Amino acid sequence: LDRDAMRQARERHDQLVKPRGSLGQLEDLAEQLAGLARTSPPPIPERAAVVIFAGDHGVHRHGVSPWPQEITAAMVGTFLNGRAVINAIAKQTGATVRVVDVGVATDLPDHPRLRKERVRPGTDDLATAPAMTRAEAVQAVEVGIRTASELVAAGHSCLLTGDMGIANTTPAAALVAAFTGASPEDATGRGTGIDDPTWTTKVAVVRQALDLHRLDLADPLGVLAALGGLEHAATVGYLLGAAALRTPVILDGVAAAAAAIVAAALAPDATGAFIAGHLSQEPAAQLALDKLALRPLLDLRMRLGEGTGASLALPIVQSAARVLHEVATLDELANPTP
Amino acid sequence: LDRDAMRQARERHDQLVKPRGSLGQLEDLAEQLAGLARTSPPPIPERAAVVIFAGDHGVHRHGVSPWPQEITAAMVGTFLNGRAVINAIAKQTGATVRVVDVGVATDLPDHPRLRKERVRPGTDDLATAPAMTRAEAVQAVEVGIRTASELVAAGHSCLLTGDMGIANTTPAAALVAAFTGASPEDATGRGTGIDDPTWTTKVAVVRQALDLHRLDLADPLGVLAALGGLEHAATVGYLLGAAALRTPVILDGVAAAAAAIVAAALAPDATGAFIAGHLSQEPAAQLALDKLALRPLLDLRMRLGEGTGASLALPIVQSAARVLHEVATLDELANPTP
Repeated sequence: LDRDAMRQARERHDQLVKPRGSLGQLEDLAEQLAGLARTSPPPIPERAAVVIFAGDHGVHRHGVSPWPQEITAAMVGTFLNGRAVINAIAKQTGATVRVVDVGVATDLPDHPRLRKERVRPGTDDLATAPAMTRAEAVQAVEVGIRTASELVAAGHSCLLTGDMGIANTTPAAALVAAFTGASPEDATGRGTGIDDPTWTTKVAVVRQALDLHRLDLADPLGVLAALGGLEHAATVGYLLGAAALRTPVILDGVAAAAAAIVAAALAPDATGAFIAGHLSQEPAAQLALDKLALRPLLDLRMRLGEGTGASLALPIVQSAARVLHEVATLDELANPTP
Repeated sequence: LDRDAMRQARERHDQLVKPRGSLGQLEDLAEQLAGLARTSPPPIPERAAVVIFAGDHGVHRHGVSPWPQEITAAMVGTFLNGRAVINAIAKQTGATVRVVDVGVATDLPDHPRLRKERVRPGTDDLATAPAMTRAEAVQAVEVGIRTASELVAAGHSCLLTGDMGIANTTPAAALVAAFTGASPEDATGRGTGIDDPTWTTKVAVVRQALDLHRLDLADPLGVLAALGGLEHAATVGYLLGAAALRTPVILDGVAAAAAAIVAAALAPDATGAFIAGHLSQEPAAQLALDKLALRPLLDLRMRLGEGTGASLALPIVQSAARVLHEVATLDELANPTP
């Protein structure tokens, strides 16, 4: 983040027709956008896209989710038909929805709004083997980087994360436990709303995975390959791509938080581009955001994923930038020009 | 709130292509909107207006604010010129901004977007006399009711509160202390960001006012007249008018929270129409929302007023309704129609 631009944004905030600091987190956000854009006021991120990376998970066979794996493919169809929750919210807040198949187990029919970038048809079972090879993890990360680059090249000035993958809160919990040192119990949540026996199984699977793999936190890609999902890996690349292009990226829920912690391990400066859209109900989300020192914009007790929380936060991000552009200064108030 | 419509909304939520309850507070909000509209799905509140009621305060003479009283009139001019923070945020989120002078001390020039409904040029000093007469309080409440009615008649389906009045967090703190029983210390905040001596003065003024007036909580209009500002009184009417017309009304900060607690004392059922847009940094806001059992949608550490927090919350309210309209059910997912 550019310190000069951040300072200029802060100074401008202090000159506007409002008490100092009275916009709270909105001021912090505008200063971040200025630092990222290296200019104050920063451009208003008008054109926004939410990308839903979809993948399946070998760990599903342990019964960590009550939903059948085929729901992943079915929900991709629902996104493409415009009938999922993310479509309604993105329509309301003005974001475009894109779907990228980075690892769905089921073969998907072609669709003009679906990008097929499948690295493999679902991961392996992280409790008994690496979820994917290092080469596959790299390939998925590259899908994410390319997706971000193409969207920015097409004129998008704000990127939002989204995810779809039945059972994908299990690898997210494992990744967050690995990088934060949290216990499997503390990092593992109720996902779609599982019962106590399923949660106990899920915790055991996370513990087994953490015990099985010789995790080296100095090798984030290795940890990602061992524990992650293909959508987490693609999101890591998407975040890094956005950050490299100095484009703000709004994190959705726990999948994004887990990817963000991997991305930060690979490139600590990348976090300057990250905005926590909301606080997912999954405990790993809070753990990851705390580690990244990100304060979420919303806390509506949501736990859906798809990019829904990030999309609800978009108008807040846009408003933060708009204030720096359009609001008068106290000097102008004292000396009005017609 | 209509229980049948709320139940229908809840049942529909449980049928949508998402885990049960996974939209958290967004589901509660949609059910409230359904109950208010007496139908599920409820209409999407597309057309929204934020009304800034402006007034001045005799209590200003005690030095409870570092800003001169003339700033109230100057800020009204800034709202009308479209150069205040509320203009930028309302533009981003699609709300129309209206200004109503219900009690500014300075004479304001005519302007096509300003409604002049001045009851008196500022209140009297609540620490030494009733802020206004009962008749004046009623008159200001009627301004608010009429404003809400006209906006709804003109096709607005969502009303937002806004306020402007230098020193107006002092009467807000006094009203909230009176109705919640909180101490002056607990109810009184930093307003625009006052220093310790000013805060101590402000607390003393609130205590003096609470001691002076023979407050009878069974007579909410009497309490409002003794302690309130003209913009608080007008907001009480605006809230009651919105509720009577079954129109959702998004509360902004502490001025709205104080008005809401008075409105609830006058008509307990009215709270069914109230949505807490955000949590102001003023402690009285939290006290009032707790008493009203309202959970704010946003908590961005803002303390500006003007309707800024309510306007940021508008897309969340619209999204909540849109989800019930546009999202597929699990049955549709299992039996897709082309």
